Amino acid sequence: MQKIKQKLIELGQQLVRQIEKKQNPTVSLPVRSLSNVHYNKKIGTLELGKNMASRQFFNVAHTKKFLQTIEVANVSKKLLDLGKTTSLRDVYYQIKRTIPGTKINVCDEQTETDKAIEDLEVITGFSREQLHINANKNGSVSGRVIIEDKGDTIDWSKMGSGGWSIPSNVEDITFKKVQAKYVLYMEKAAVWERLHEDKFWDKHQCIILSSQGQTTRGIRRLLQRLAEEHNLPIYVLTDFDPWGHYIYSVIKYGSISLAHISDKMAIPQVKYLGILAKDIEEYDLKKHFISLNDKDISRIKQISDYDWFKDKKIWQKEFEAMKKYKSKAEIQALSSKGITFISDKYLPEKIKKQDWID
Amino acid sequence: MQKIKQKLIELGQQLVRQIEKKQNPTVSLPVRSLSNVHYNKKIGTLELGKNMASRQFFNVAHTKKFLQTIEVANVSKKLLDLGKTTSLRDVYYQIKRTIPGTKINVCDEQTETDKAIEDLEVITGFSREQLHINANKNGSVSGRVIIEDKGDTIDWSKMGSGGWSIPSNVEDITFKKVQAKYVLYMEKAAVWERLHEDKFWDKHQCIILSSQGQTTRGIRRLLQRLAEEHNLPIYVLTDFDPWGHYIYSVIKYGSISLAHISDKMAIPQVKYLGILAKDIEEYDLKKHFISLNDKDISRIKQISDYDWFKDKKIWQKEFEAMKKYKSKAEIQALSSKGITFISDKYLPEKIKKQDWID
Repeated sequence: MQKIKQKLIELGQQLVRQIEKKQNPTVSLPVRSLSNVHYNKKIGTLELGKNMASRQFFNVAHTKKFLQTIEVANVSKKLLDLGKTTSLRDVYYQIKRTIPGTKINVCDEQTETDKAIEDLEVITGFSREQLHINANKNGSVSGRVIIEDKGDTIDWSKMGSGGWSIPSNVEDITFKKVQAKYVLYMEKAAVWERLHEDKFWDKHQCIILSSQGQTTRGIRRLLQRLAEEHNLPIYVLTDFDPWGHYIYSVIKYGSISLAHISDKMAIPQVKYLGILAKDIEEYDLKKHFISLNDKDISRIKQISDYDWFKDKKIWQKEFEAMKKYKSKAEIQALSSKGITFISDKYLPEKIKKQDWID
Repeated sequence: MQKIKQKLIELGQQLVRQIEKKQNPTVSLPVRSLSNVHYNKKIGTLELGKNMASRQFFNVAHTKKFLQTIEVANVSKKLLDLGKTTSLRDVYYQIKRTIPGTKINVCDEQTETDKAIEDLEVITGFSREQLHINANKNGSVSGRVIIEDKGDTIDWSKMGSGGWSIPSNVEDITFKKVQAKYVLYMEKAAVWERLHEDKFWDKHQCIILSSQGQTTRGIRRLLQRLAEEHNLPIYVLTDFDPWGHYIYSVIKYGSISLAHISDKMAIPQVKYLGILAKDIEEYDLKKHFISLNDKDISRIKQISDYDWFKDKKIWQKEFEAMKKYKSKAEIQALSSKGITFISDKYLPEKIKKQDWID
């Protein structure tokens, strides 16, 4: 934490020096638009290119963003001093105010402070979580794992039917014991409850982890820490649709808007377990097809054109199958084969046969 | 559980008897539309009226719904036999199929099976959770409480930064120790993380509980069990907007579509803690107003006309204030007063002064 504070202090000192020298206060940072985002084939993650931009106080086009960036740095410094964390929304409210004698607000929308926080990540090289700013929490986990967090010892195998609720910030948890051969991440809480009730994690010695809807940064970091610190394979389980595929893509490669932080988020060794196009045939799921709508179709096109999917034949085949079928399918279609089919047959078979794609 | 199974068996036997007597197989159940939903002033919850409808197999207008209801009962019976639970979506997939020799599906949309499940609740008098069918899980809880669930002993005060993840079904948990003076429920996970980091539950001996977005049935039942079994007051904390007010309304009175189950869900003694219109003045939140949009305005009108709000002057004043201000305000606007303002000042003051409305 001392290192992070030091970095923020240096940022302030640098500006003070510029002011003392009567220079235009300036911070410089890499451009963060798609044009400056590249897919690094060797490492297997998205990363920022070398194009730099500078942000100057005495420049009408920059001055507001400049101020927002400094304000965000100020909030972060305060949080670190207090040993507290806060949410993105709260940062917005802490910064929002009208500049005295004018009708100009420091910020009008949360998107402005959110962007400024991302900029601060790039400038300092520390993640938002390290700067003590969190997004919403979401998701549950269970497995034969014991962690320490805020002085509490928490056994993920003794959490009843609920599981441990994943916090928005997992930087400070310590793994005391990890007894697992792999991690299974699923996009749907209902699937998690199915596997949890069937004690899948106990029978197959794994960790099961789920969000509901989007994969939060807390979840991505938790997956990454399990992959890196404990060398566990991560398998992703989503619907057979472009949205499910993009969930996988973000976990594996990182996301476009957060390319600057791929090294702290992306997990190149992640595998996509299903639902695969071949599962549709093998498990007779065609009768549970849902027709693609226009949004689905354009999303498939968009995704299949991404650099990190473009050259992957195995993925292009998935996209082609979806277009051929004109349909998507939900993971829960497997329930038509029986209440515990997913726990008793689908997953054990797939994992035994290593039936996933990369 | 035996009682629930018995009820389902009786339902089947009743139909068999009708068939053997060559009668038209029929189930009867109360009408569940708004016209048959009344606000019971004495008890303080919504309830179903006396209008009954019958559903017959030999009636083209009924036959599909009849079949869906019986199919749902069949799935529930199977679940109870296996000692398993499943999700609403999974029930849909288990029932969905084409009737041989026809092009007719037993169900086309999940809404059909969802409705059939609600009907089965009315017919049997048991809740969906008791029939072993769950919606999505959501939410976290912490406090000085020890529970038992599925053979695990879980201490809500030793859950690190995450808290215990609330399952979709809380029927089978047992409270072993409850050391709390009240329960604070908030609609926003970020506010929960604020209070949890500040150890609000420890300092003020209470339970803090949050969803993200809608209050799931699991959460409502958990609140109700804490209120009834441990005689704890429940305070609700939401944004100052009609959506926040409706969150409170559902927890307190029950919801229109689930009026048949109010006795298992509604908590008449719930209080609304804030944000109140007077808080806006008192805590100087006007500068953080957000203008009402058309949806907000029509929702205010709708809510203020509900039977259970119509005669409550104190609530009408809230709605009037919102219309006068032409604005709503978020709970997180309090952050503008300081990172821990809500934990250190706002909540302790309000609770000490009993500054809530009923």
